[in-house]
This record gives sequence, C-alpha cells and structure tokens, in this order.
Amino acid sequence: MANAGPSSFVDYDKFLLFGDSITQGAFDQSSGFGFAAALQHDYVRKLDVINRGFSGYNTSHALRILSSIIQPPTHSQIKLMTVFFGANDAVLEGLPQHVSLQEYRTNLHTIVTHEVLQSHNPKLILITPPPICEYKTQEHDRENGRIQKQRTAARTKEYVDVALEVGREANIPTVNLWNAFMAYAGWSEGEPLLGCKTQPKNESLGALLRDGLHFTSKGYEIMYNEVIEVIIQHYPELKANTLPSIFPAWEVAPKYESSK
Amino acid sequence: MANAGPSSFVDYDKFLLFGDSITQGAFDQSSGFGFAAALQHDYVRKLDVINRGFSGYNTSHALRILSSIIQPPTHSQIKLMTVFFGANDAVLEGLPQHVSLQEYRTNLHTIVTHEVLQSHNPKLILITPPPICEYKTQEHDRENGRIQKQRTAARTKEYVDVALEVGREANIPTVNLWNAFMAYAGWSEGEPLLGCKTQPKNESLGALLRDGLHFTSKGYEIMYNEVIEVIIQHYPELKANTLPSIFPAWEVAPKYESSK
Repeated sequence: MANAGPSSFVDYDKFLLFGDSITQGAFDQSSGFGFAAALQHDYVRKLDVINRGFSGYNTSHALRILSSIIQPPTHSQIKLMTVFFGANDAVLEGLPQHVSLQEYRTNLHTIVTHEVLQSHNPKLILITPPPICEYKTQEHDRENGRIQKQRTAARTKEYVDVALEVGREANIPTVNLWNAFMAYAGWSEGEPLLGCKTQPKNESLGALLRDGLHFTSKGYEIMYNEVIEVIIQHYPELKANTLPSIFPAWEVAPKYESSK
Repeated sequence: MANAGPSSFVDYDKFLLFGDSITQGAFDQSSGFGFAAALQHDYVRKLDVINRGFSGYNTSHALRILSSIIQPPTHSQIKLMTVFFGANDAVLEGLPQHVSLQEYRTNLHTIVTHEVLQSHNPKLILITPPPICEYKTQEHDRENGRIQKQRTAARTKEYVDVALEVGREANIPTVNLWNAFMAYAGWSEGEPLLGCKTQPKNESLGALLRDGLHFTSKGYEIMYNEVIEVIIQHYPELKANTLPSIFPAWEVAPKYESSK
C-alpha cells in the first residue's frame, strides 16, 4: 500500500457461500455442473463468488470461525450469502460431528443473526440440509471402513425442520432443499420417507446424491435453481442481470494514452 | 468493523485472472468445462480465484484500470496472476479496439512490471493471444452485422510473437497458447498458417474456437493444462496440492462451546 501510493482500488462486492463439504465442492464440474461456478458466471464483473465451504464442519465449527471469514467492510460488502449447514450436525449421537438438535437450532440462529454480519447487512439465504439415501451412504461408509452407521434419513429430517424454523423465526428466506430433492424423487408429504432403508431404494433420489450425501451435477442444478428463485422472489434488486457491471463496457472504457 | 470490534478476519490469498472476454467467460460451464472453475476447485480453501476479465478490453483499457483492480495487500496477497491480453489489440487498424504492435509491446511490458503489482510480488503467468479461425470469425461477424473484416490469422500471430518477447524480456513464464492450439490442430512451424482463409478450413482448430475467437470447452481445457504446467514447472511451491488449507480440517477444528 505504501509502495503503491494512495490506492484507487475498486473491489467487487461479494456473494459468500458458507457451508460444509457440499459448498466446498460447489466449483467442481467433474460431473458436468458446478453450483458455484454457475453463480460466478452469472455475476461476472458484478460480484465475486467466494467459497467458504469446509468439509466436515458442523454449526459448532462454523460459529467458531464465523468472525474469521467475514471481511471488514472496508473496500467491499457481502451482498448475498448462503448459510448451508446441518448435514454434519445430523450425524448420529456419539459420533464426533454430532450436534444436538437444540444446539443446532441455537448455533444456526446465532450464525444468521450474528453481529459480525451486521456491518455488511448481507441478504441471507438459509439452506436446509438435503435428504440422504441410506442405501448409498451405508455402502459408501462400508467402502471407507466406517462400520458404525453415520446418518439416517429420519434423523436428518429433524434437522431440516429445525432449519426451517430458524429461517421463519429470523425471517430469512430459506431454501427447502430437502423438499426440492424429495419432490424430484416423486415423494409427497405424508408418504413413507424415501432414502430410508425400510423403503425400496429410490433411483431418482440416488441420482442427486453421488454417495448418498454429496451432490451429483443434477443435485447442484436443483440447488442452483432454488437459490436463484429465492433471489428473484426476495432480493430482485440483486439479480445478476439487474446489477450493473463495476467497470465500463469496452466501447466507453477509458484508455491509457501512452507517450509513444 | 467498528461494530464488530477488532477483526479476526483471515482472508484467503488470491489467484487473479486478468484479461479480456476469454477470461471473463472462464467460469462458463455451458459447453462442459470452465477454466476458472477448474482452478477454483483445485485451490478451494487455499486461494480465491478472482475473475477480472473484461470483454472487449485491449491493453490500453487494461493499463488504465490496473491500479483499480489490484487490492492493497492489507489482508491478503495476490499469489498467482494470469495476464492474458492481445486478442483485441490485434483487431485491424482503423477499428476502435486496435492497438499498434509497438503500443501493445509497451503496454504489456508496463502491466507485467507495474509498481502496483510489486506490493504483492505475484507469480505472473503471461498468456499469448490464441490463434483465430478466419472462416468462423467472418461468419460470426456477418451474422452480427459487422461488414468490415475484424481480424486476420496472420496479424494475430504478430501479437503472439510480441507477447513472447515481452515475456522473455521481463523474465515471466509465458504460456504460448497460440502454439498449443496450433499443435492440437496438427500445425508445425514453417507450414502455411492454419486459420487463414488461404488454407482449407481446419476442423480441429475450429473445435477449440466456438466463434473463431472465443473458446469451447476443449479450448479452455488446453488453456487449463498449459497454466497448470507453468505452475508445476516455475512455481511448484504454489501447486494446489502443495499449499496448505487455511482453516483446519474438521477432525482438528476448534468448536464453539455453547452455554446450553
């Protein structure tokens, strides 16, 4: 800074993605579509899409690092932010990632209402945990030498309901990703839970969850569409095609005049 | 900042992509592979890949905004940076994007040696302009109502040679992307120039350049491989799998202890 003289730096505002491994993997295109890459392409020259995904983290880990990942609003602001935790909190009691339902509720509420966010006043999008497919998670766990059962479809659903409650209480638009995945798989409210081993294996649900928990391309596409829908409905002023580009189009951009 | 008390913010260092529309489009996955998305996936939890691509910009535009896109090195550093201009400088004389060869040389040299970069001492990767396919650019221009010829394969090649010279003079590793594309298309040094209308249309070259100038997925893949190769050869300490993650793995990450 001192070397470069007074800075004329113009930063881009941010679209912050805060979550666990499902967020961490959101730039991966290996199966054909990366959620975060699609967002960054939409917002190119308008917002920087910043990935703060942390594989394996639950809301206790998340809360502990929250003030370390939120920038001081000196040069730019966090305009949009997804908060997407719960898949790891929901592992079964006794396992190291487990966070109780009550603690999940408190942590999630603390995160989305945290004072460290206030300096940015970001438009938040809370995302519920996705469903799991027990057939695939158990097969994946066996392959990785984990003998103990890690997750159940029914337990995860309890965390989904808590996330929805937190969103309602804090008045934050919430993507019911669990429901979007289940609807894609043909499930309707009141029917026996898909993904549960007491039910036949559902191929449509499995097509969204590559190892029963993490997303395929199709899963990320559903997530992308749901997030975009929240922006359109709740934050239309932040739609990608509504926001202006930060630097001008080439036809009107100033040029450097070299002394030839 | 004042509200949040002393900031414990830990930013990620940056991998900055500075260029024209080919850089701007580098998160696009619509044809199957986005260059920037692949990099960001490689460097997730290590570096933020920041897109500073500006459609239509030449080196005169670029030089004019350089100090506005380089952050003060307060919280984080630019560790890696691609500089990829010339495709627009090389439009034919008399057209508004044209920059003379001599001015291109001076501008490009000024950019890569600019004092505003020194505070970061980024590891630079210069990228030559790619070849063009005149068959496809002229068809595309006709479709868009541009009657005047915009670019020739031979003219672009002159800008490629200047970019290589600037890289040599400034001692900056340079991706000869022109050569990588031409080699893919089966061309060898000394042969008549592929992409030129005096030669038969080359389908392999055309398969890299969707409109004769901008890249298909396959073009971006070649670009990705070339950039990774430069990092491996010249900056091995900055390879994605060499860099540590900034925040700890979940197994050892501290947790927030709520007062239940």
